[in-house]
Amino acid sequence: MEFEKLLAHRTRHMSRSAIREILKVASQPGMLSLAGGIPAPASFPLELIGDLSRQVIHKYADQAFQYGLTEGFMPLRQALATHLVARDIHVPGETILITSGSQGVLDAIGKILISPGDTVGLESPTYLGALQAFAPYEPSYTAIDCDEDGVIPDALERVLAEGRAKFIYLVPTFQNPSGRTLPLDRRRAIATLIERYNALLIEDDPYCDLRYEGQPLPPIKSLAPEHVVYVGTLSKVFAPGLRIGYCLAPEPIRNWLVLVKQGVDLHTSTFNQALAAEYLEGGHLQQHLPHILKLYRPRQKAMLEALERYLPADFQWSRPEGGMFVWVEGPEGVNMDDIYQAAVRRQVAFVPGHFFFAQPGDGLGTMRLNFTMPSSDEIDRAIQILGEVIRESSLPQVSHESGSPEWQQNASRAGIEVL
Amino acid sequence: MEFEKLLAHRTRHMSRSAIREILKVASQPGMLSLAGGIPAPASFPLELIGDLSRQVIHKYADQAFQYGLTEGFMPLRQALATHLVARDIHVPGETILITSGSQGVLDAIGKILISPGDTVGLESPTYLGALQAFAPYEPSYTAIDCDEDGVIPDALERVLAEGRAKFIYLVPTFQNPSGRTLPLDRRRAIATLIERYNALLIEDDPYCDLRYEGQPLPPIKSLAPEHVVYVGTLSKVFAPGLRIGYCLAPEPIRNWLVLVKQGVDLHTSTFNQALAAEYLEGGHLQQHLPHILKLYRPRQKAMLEALERYLPADFQWSRPEGGMFVWVEGPEGVNMDDIYQAAVRRQVAFVPGHFFFAQPGDGLGTMRLNFTMPSSDEIDRAIQILGEVIRESSLPQVSHESGSPEWQQNASRAGIEVL
Repeated sequence: MEFEKLLAHRTRHMSRSAIREILKVASQPGMLSLAGGIPAPASFPLELIGDLSRQVIHKYADQAFQYGLTEGFMPLRQALATHLVARDIHVPGETILITSGSQGVLDAIGKILISPGDTVGLESPTYLGALQAFAPYEPSYTAIDCDEDGVIPDALERVLAEGRAKFIYLVPTFQNPSGRTLPLDRRRAIATLIERYNALLIEDDPYCDLRYEGQPLPPIKSLAPEHVVYVGTLSKVFAPGLRIGYCLAPEPIRNWLVLVKQGVDLHTSTFNQALAAEYLEGGHLQQHLPHILKLYRPRQKAMLEALERYLPADFQWSRPEGGMFVWVEGPEGVNMDDIYQAAVRRQVAFVPGHFFFAQPGDGLGTMRLNFTMPSSDEIDRAIQILGEVIRESSLPQVSHESGSPEWQQNASRAGIEVL
Repeated sequence: MEFEKLLAHRTRHMSRSAIREILKVASQPGMLSLAGGIPAPASFPLELIGDLSRQVIHKYADQAFQYGLTEGFMPLRQALATHLVARDIHVPGETILITSGSQGVLDAIGKILISPGDTVGLESPTYLGALQAFAPYEPSYTAIDCDEDGVIPDALERVLAEGRAKFIYLVPTFQNPSGRTLPLDRRRAIATLIERYNALLIEDDPYCDLRYEGQPLPPIKSLAPEHVVYVGTLSKVFAPGLRIGYCLAPEPIRNWLVLVKQGVDLHTSTFNQALAAEYLEGGHLQQHLPHILKLYRPRQKAMLEALERYLPADFQWSRPEGGMFVWVEGPEGVNMDDIYQAAVRRQVAFVPGHFFFAQPGDGLGTMRLNFTMPSSDEIDRAIQILGEVIRESSLPQVSHESGSPEWQQNASRAGIEVL
């Protein structure tokens, strides 16, 4: 039968993610990949999860396998409330909503807030998964100007003063893709602006525990609690395959999010929530986190050193104190799609940065590099080759066209590709 | 801040489920509850899940805890392909999409197919969770006339001939709430009609394995494979808390469903999918299912016998060969909201049937009774009291008003209430 005629209007807005082919190429044998966006398998506490499974079955028995409250498993919500005190967030567990990864919050936010044509203000570049979550609700986007410290408060104020944005979406700490972190003074300025303009901010904070140096910064949620939906996850510090995210939202928003979640998946896996509760309650996160940091810290250092060593002087990059990504910007005229093609021929993969911009044609001279999956040696080798490829791509030959090559048109299928 | 002004148009269509208060009342100590819609805790293979957890960690290691494909964990998809052969469904595992409960399919179907105002054809009464999943996409509903054997093919043909329905949603086997099952001749007639009118059918089939007597019937999917999205779940025969559902959809629909799922939750818990794969592959479902049937069969028998014994002669009820529910219809003029109030005063709870109708005012004389949670003795006692309450509610006193009592206006929060 002809199914196309059955599709809803909104469905044409669900674009197929274009980086699928890149991640397919990146996973070919022999490829040195800086393209991924996922935790190293060695960061998962496998043996511990086995122990926790036994504990959960013993402690909660059938309760861990029965239907549960849409809001989440209360022991996990209480454990998270305790966990969040270190981030200067002080809330009772009853106000925390457990979600199926943080992706679930983004979809639900889009569903309750975005009417077709509504404007969302966001960083440029921004997290691809957020664009994909919002897309079915047919938003327009307003890009807020950023520099190497993230969103510029004056630029945010211009967007807020216009009054068009339904809400603002930011990843303030070790942002995906840019690795950038908003310094404290900007967090304060943004909190003040959000309050002054009576606006709503979605603060997506998946990476804050992955800090390899420097001091933790308070989330904007702690500075303007009534105006921020705070979105967190255990995917980077426990195991992403368990799909445990959470959010803290002001009261009426929270009630609508619960209602949406009930229609989407009833609730998040009770067993996995109980595992996460045991992980937090038992102090295992504090014990295990240093192992994860010890795994990633030298890789991040290796990447920053290699960029210094091998990249031309007119290239710039972020120097994040944590997270999973470094963001590279070439000089005027560089087209990273061309660099990508040349790099892949030399068995090195990355993600050209333009994928992370809401406006087509933006970010052609940028790239996202991941340092959590490859080893330090692999990182050094990959960046060395990247430096050679960049030098060989003499500027006069570089195409400046912004059209999408064929490999961007392919259908998206793998969840990992938006990460 | 004033959040109401931020809400999308669609959000006002997300009605708060009205049976929350009923289930809250039903869970009070001392209450004999026939109101629930969930499996008995004794039906969960707890010890086995402990063993399977160890096996999964040993067999799949980090793969069970990493991000995975949106389509699902391949060993589970293959195990389901084998499992479905007994239902006369023959498909390769690659065509099976794993979802976070079957609820996830219903939301995704709504998202890709329903534009505001589009019509969905469904049974009357129908599954409340489907109404809740579709609601944000702002559909209209066309009720298809049913009798004690479920949907009447002539009534379906009238709806299809009108050509207004985007798709048809049915629960053909041991329906929630009516317990009704479409006989084979109607399945064939419906398959023929769906093909003839080039229509799309969503066949929701959560209960088919819970058959206590009689012969299994082929799903409509096996009779019109190109026109049916088949939706299944392991929630009734393994553990609902693991949130494992699945669907088989014709090719283009499947691709859109994957795209939607990517934006909603990236993928379903890898660990739980691996547990389900081991459960199926190891032959544990076949071994465990007889225990579940042995638990529920006498309860269903007890309920049918008690209804015969205690209900007035002018009441009718379904006599399902499986599932979790019996549906009762009173004579003209009975208002089950009144019966409910009187029953609760005598410590017996059920769900008045009108909640399961898309049109307000329909089904006032009906009720849904669950027999999987209470014991046979409790069922007998509860129905005896119900019979007394019904006889005491002499018809002249019964109110015929269709307005919603105050307890129907309360906010819905628990996922279990739509079940």
